[in-house]
Amino acid sequence: MVTIDDIQNARNRIHNSIETTPLLTSDRLNSALPFDLYVKAECLQRTGSFKFRGGCNAVFSIEDSTLPVIAFSSGNHAQAVALAARLSNRQATIIMPEDAPATKIAGTKSYGAEVVLYDRYTQSREEIGEKIASEQGAILIRPYDNENVIAGQGTAGLEICEQANARNIGIDHYISCCGGGGLLAGTAIAISHHLPDTQLYSAEPEAFNDTKLSLAAGKRLSNAPDARSICDAIVTPCPGELTFPILQKTGCSGLSAPDEDALHAMHIAWSYFKLTVEPGGAIALACALSPEFLSRFEGAGRRQTVVAMLSGGNVDADMFTAALEQALRL
Amino acid sequence: MVTIDDIQNARNRIHNSIETTPLLTSDRLNSALPFDLYVKAECLQRTGSFKFRGGCNAVFSIEDSTLPVIAFSSGNHAQAVALAARLSNRQATIIMPEDAPATKIAGTKSYGAEVVLYDRYTQSREEIGEKIASEQGAILIRPYDNENVIAGQGTAGLEICEQANARNIGIDHYISCCGGGGLLAGTAIAISHHLPDTQLYSAEPEAFNDTKLSLAAGKRLSNAPDARSICDAIVTPCPGELTFPILQKTGCSGLSAPDEDALHAMHIAWSYFKLTVEPGGAIALACALSPEFLSRFEGAGRRQTVVAMLSGGNVDADMFTAALEQALRL
Repeated sequence: MVTIDDIQNARNRIHNSIETTPLLTSDRLNSALPFDLYVKAECLQRTGSFKFRGGCNAVFSIEDSTLPVIAFSSGNHAQAVALAARLSNRQATIIMPEDAPATKIAGTKSYGAEVVLYDRYTQSREEIGEKIASEQGAILIRPYDNENVIAGQGTAGLEICEQANARNIGIDHYISCCGGGGLLAGTAIAISHHLPDTQLYSAEPEAFNDTKLSLAAGKRLSNAPDARSICDAIVTPCPGELTFPILQKTGCSGLSAPDEDALHAMHIAWSYFKLTVEPGGAIALACALSPEFLSRFEGAGRRQTVVAMLSGGNVDADMFTAALEQALRL
Repeated sequence: MVTIDDIQNARNRIHNSIETTPLLTSDRLNSALPFDLYVKAECLQRTGSFKFRGGCNAVFSIEDSTLPVIAFSSGNHAQAVALAARLSNRQATIIMPEDAPATKIAGTKSYGAEVVLYDRYTQSREEIGEKIASEQGAILIRPYDNENVIAGQGTAGLEICEQANARNIGIDHYISCCGGGGLLAGTAIAISHHLPDTQLYSAEPEAFNDTKLSLAAGKRLSNAPDARSICDAIVTPCPGELTFPILQKTGCSGLSAPDEDALHAMHIAWSYFKLTVEPGGAIALACALSPEFLSRFEGAGRRQTVVAMLSGGNVDADMFTAALEQALRL
């Protein structure tokens, strides 16, 4: 299992290549909420999402500097591995669903990777990836079931703890989006190490609430194969083999929100935090603003602090415009 | 004239109240440009613009803690003074144009200030402000012709120099939007002190290019009274009395771009930097991406570094949607 030392080592390895993204708050939004809300702006990370942390750590950890890399991804891990490969002078092949946002496909190509498209509902990206990997002798960088990836994502958690400390605030609740669970697993290890009293939550679209169901059941469960969501970055069918035990061990519990709340959260992030966030990247904020979560703070004595991860910002303009058409409920 | 010591003192005064905003770059955008572009994301500052720096420094500098404050502003200085007043337990009255973006008026009210609306084309905000100030015994915080405001804005320049140093990059060119000139004057003092070889530029909408004309003429000139621009934050008629000599002394030269280029720059900032930027806040980026500015780098030997200030992000959704409808030219 990934340890806090693995995350610290990851940070030492990637520190000069990544952005330290800000932890932001909004005086105006807080005045309308029953808690103080902070957001970790990983949409400002290089390649537009947190995935660059794990991608860098995994690619930079390969000892043989001549080996090419390969990844399958809906777009954010794709761009992360593509740029990490370019920075270390390796060839990269990326397998992407043909319905991925255009900006993600264009971004991946712009970093010099070869892109192979597939149908996410009829083909297995894992099988395609493993076939090409064996043909090329390339190293497959899995998007979440890879210890170096998890450790890399965890560096965002180290930053959150340090930034909270610099602001002299505690963190009562931490909510992270959860696809395969790499980001939540990594940051949960970091936060539970430094701030053991923080409550940890996974956030998912309602149609892809496999982590929520799995945490409640105590075993890995899958979504229905016909499930659909606009949260393209996190529509994984079930929790990861390596990540799920970490979520259990760190005491995560599950939250979910409908797609329309993700759109609303994108509008909130745009209006109050001045950030571009994609649907999957906004789901933690959507869960933080859900009536069910807000109601937990009714009559709370001490004003508490909630940190929501805004994990990425790679979204096409038409989807974003749809978000801005959502009436602001705050 | 404001000195580097004044800016350092301002920083000591406001350091715990402001955000240190990130200096961001985009690998993908840089690959399409003849220089490396960095943006200073002041749209992430508290209240959504750099104005909070100067507002805080001016309000916190008032010795009598019981005096109310008053300000006239198109919206960003308004919100800055309103929040700074609330943080120091003072009453604030803000005089705003009735056609200011709704988000700016709502923001100012949300910070607890009393808002007085006026017609920006037929009434003088200065006269209204001075009348109320004398009636209430309130301290008038001018938006740019105030040494404490200029020094406060200059703290963004200190951060830029430190952030460039931390990235081990120099700054060949620095471009800042320019309304009355407080931000450019303050940051020009800081940057010319720490990085004396940096070329400094004002950026304005073409219809409000008074600073460009004034710098070329060597004296303060005004725009036509019927000039109009969507860049509501920076439609001041002429350079400030205190700010203009600073722009001259630090060797600033003038750039301008049409309103449609400001919209395009908003789309660029959204797409590549994941930031919400308002029209006036995007004009420095628009000037950096203008054909005239880009052409200066043709055949340049060493790859140069350009820093553009993204000064604010308080924009209504309809204006932003119009920006996203602009075809991306990069």
